[in-house]
Amino acid sequence: MEFSLIDRIRERTAQARDDVHLGIGDDAALVAVPSGQELAVAIDTLVEGVHFPLGTLASDVGWKSLAVNLSDLAAMSATPAWALLAMTLPKGDSDFIDGFATGFAQLAQPYRLALVGGDTTRGPLTISVAVHGFVPHGKALTRAGAKPGDVIFVTGTLGDAAAGLQLLQGQRNNDARAHFLVERLNRPTPRVAAGLALRGHATACIDVSDGLLADLGHLCKASGVGAEVDASLLPRSSALLDLFDDTTSRDFALSGGDDYELCFTVSSQHTATVQADLARLGCGATKIGRIVEGGDIGVRGADGNALEQHHRGWDHFTS
Amino acid sequence: MEFSLIDRIRERTAQARDDVHLGIGDDAALVAVPSGQELAVAIDTLVEGVHFPLGTLASDVGWKSLAVNLSDLAAMSATPAWALLAMTLPKGDSDFIDGFATGFAQLAQPYRLALVGGDTTRGPLTISVAVHGFVPHGKALTRAGAKPGDVIFVTGTLGDAAAGLQLLQGQRNNDARAHFLVERLNRPTPRVAAGLALRGHATACIDVSDGLLADLGHLCKASGVGAEVDASLLPRSSALLDLFDDTTSRDFALSGGDDYELCFTVSSQHTATVQADLARLGCGATKIGRIVEGGDIGVRGADGNALEQHHRGWDHFTS
Repeated sequence: MEFSLIDRIRERTAQARDDVHLGIGDDAALVAVPSGQELAVAIDTLVEGVHFPLGTLASDVGWKSLAVNLSDLAAMSATPAWALLAMTLPKGDSDFIDGFATGFAQLAQPYRLALVGGDTTRGPLTISVAVHGFVPHGKALTRAGAKPGDVIFVTGTLGDAAAGLQLLQGQRNNDARAHFLVERLNRPTPRVAAGLALRGHATACIDVSDGLLADLGHLCKASGVGAEVDASLLPRSSALLDLFDDTTSRDFALSGGDDYELCFTVSSQHTATVQADLARLGCGATKIGRIVEGGDIGVRGADGNALEQHHRGWDHFTS
Repeated sequence: MEFSLIDRIRERTAQARDDVHLGIGDDAALVAVPSGQELAVAIDTLVEGVHFPLGTLASDVGWKSLAVNLSDLAAMSATPAWALLAMTLPKGDSDFIDGFATGFAQLAQPYRLALVGGDTTRGPLTISVAVHGFVPHGKALTRAGAKPGDVIFVTGTLGDAAAGLQLLQGQRNNDARAHFLVERLNRPTPRVAAGLALRGHATACIDVSDGLLADLGHLCKASGVGAEVDASLLPRSSALLDLFDDTTSRDFALSGGDDYELCFTVSSQHTATVQADLARLGCGATKIGRIVEGGDIGVRGADGNALEQHHRGWDHFTS
C-alpha cells in the first residue's frame, strides 16, 4: 500500500536534486544540507471538514496541503527543498490519489521541491506534510524582532479565503468573482519569493493562517510589542468588495483564516525598498499599521475610532 | 490550540541540543546538520483502530508513534536527532495529551531527541511523526546491497507483537507472559544501537514492521536477490512459545507485523563480529537463513521441506 500510492505520487512529483542522495523507497531518505545553510522544518495537517470543505477537489487538496507548509517556509525566508507526506484515506480511491498528486506536483514543480518520504494508510481523510527549506545561517526571519515604530505590512489581499468559504457554504459560487474567492481558499499562493525578498529588510514575519489579528498577535507576543492597525488600510480584493458589504469584508480581512499572506514589520527607513521589491514580485505589500510599545493590538476604523474587536481569529479546535 | 497542546508536549520532551537554533513556536524550526553528515528523514503515521487497538493507553500511543519512526532510522544506521509531530484528536482531552507526551518523552529522552515542530487539530485520532537523524556521508545502511551467500539475521525475537494483539483481542492478558507480549506490541524497542553497530558490517538492512517475509521481500527486491529462510531458526520468545502452539507461533514470527526488529544481511566473514557486537548490546542477533540468486523467498521447516506460504505479511490498507 505505502509503495503503490506513494509511488504514484512520486511519479508526478519527481524532481532531480543533487542534495537528495536516496529518495523514496527505503526506510528513510538520505539528503544533504548545503554548507553554511540552516534547515527550516515545519509540519502542518489538513483534515477534511476542518481545513477544507467536504467535496473539495482532490487536486486542490494536494495543492493546499503543500501550500500551507510552503507558506511557513516563506515566513522564515527559507528556500523550499524537500517534503514528507503522510496521508490517511478512507479507501483506496485511485482518482483521488491521481488528483491529489497532480495538485501537489503543480505547486512543487516551480520550486523543484522533492518528495522524499511518505506513508499512506487507511483512515479518515487527513494529510500531514512536513517541509524542509534552506536559509543561510542567522538570516532567517522570525516572529521576534519587531520594534516600536516599525511599519506593519501584509502581502496581497486579506479576507478572500474566508469569503470563499462562505460562498461555498451558500452555494453561490457561479461567477468569476466568486470563483476567484473560492480559488483563494482552495489554491492559496505561498509567498515564497516575497519571503526571500524580505530577508535583511523585515524585522519580523509570520504567515496569516489563523487570521490577521491572531497572527499579528503571535508576532507581537514573540517580539514583546503591541500594534496599531488601521482597518481602512486593509488590502481587500475587488471581488471581496463587490460581493460583500464593507463591514463583512473588513471582518473577513481582520479575522478570516487561510489567506497565507505574509504579515511583516519593517523599520521606517526600509519601507520604500520593501514596497518596490514586492511590487516587482507581483504580490505587492500594503502598509496597515505600526508597532507600538506594550502588548495590545488596537484596531481603528476610517473615522479614527477604535473598532470593537469581536473577532480575534479562529481556532480550529474550538470553532 | 496548536500552542497549548504542543507546548505541553514540549514541556515533557524538551532536550537541549546545540543543533536546534530555534525550536517550537515560530512558523518553522531552525536546525543545523553537522558537517560531514547526511540527514536521514522518514515519516510514519499511526491511526487508532488500524495501527493500535482502540483503548490503547495514551502513553503507549506516544511511545509507539516515536518508536516506529526511530526504527526506520535504526534500519538506516542513523543517530536520532529531531522529530516533528502532527496529531489529530477527537476532542481536547487533557489526560490523553499528558499521557501521550509522557510516553513520547520516555523514548525521546535516552536519545536526546528534540521535538522541533508540531501541529495539533481536531479530528479522528491520527498521529504522524517525522524523524531526522544523522549518518556520516555514504555510511547509511539501505535495503540494497545484499549478495548471494550473505547470511540473514534478525535482532531480538519475532512474532511477539502479533501474539500480543491476538491476546488483547481475546481478553486473555492477565499473566506475566501475556503482559510481555502486549508490551512488545504497545512499547516496541527501536533497535537504534544495533543499527549503529551494524554500520560497516551489514550489507543491507530493513526493519520488520509489516512482517518478516514481507520486509525481507522488500530487502531482496531492492538488492535483486532471493532468500532461503529456515523457519526452525526463527527466534521466538519463551512467552510466545508458552502461550501459542508451534505452528501459530511460527506463523506469527514469519508474518506478524509490528515487531520493529532489524532484519539484515552480513557477508559470511563478518558474522561472528556482528553476533558478538549485538549480543553485547543485549538484543542479540539470530541467523535465520541465507541470500540466494534469483528473486524468490523460500521457507523451509525443521524437516527441510518447503512450507506453504499462506501468509506474506500484512497490508494495513487491505486487511
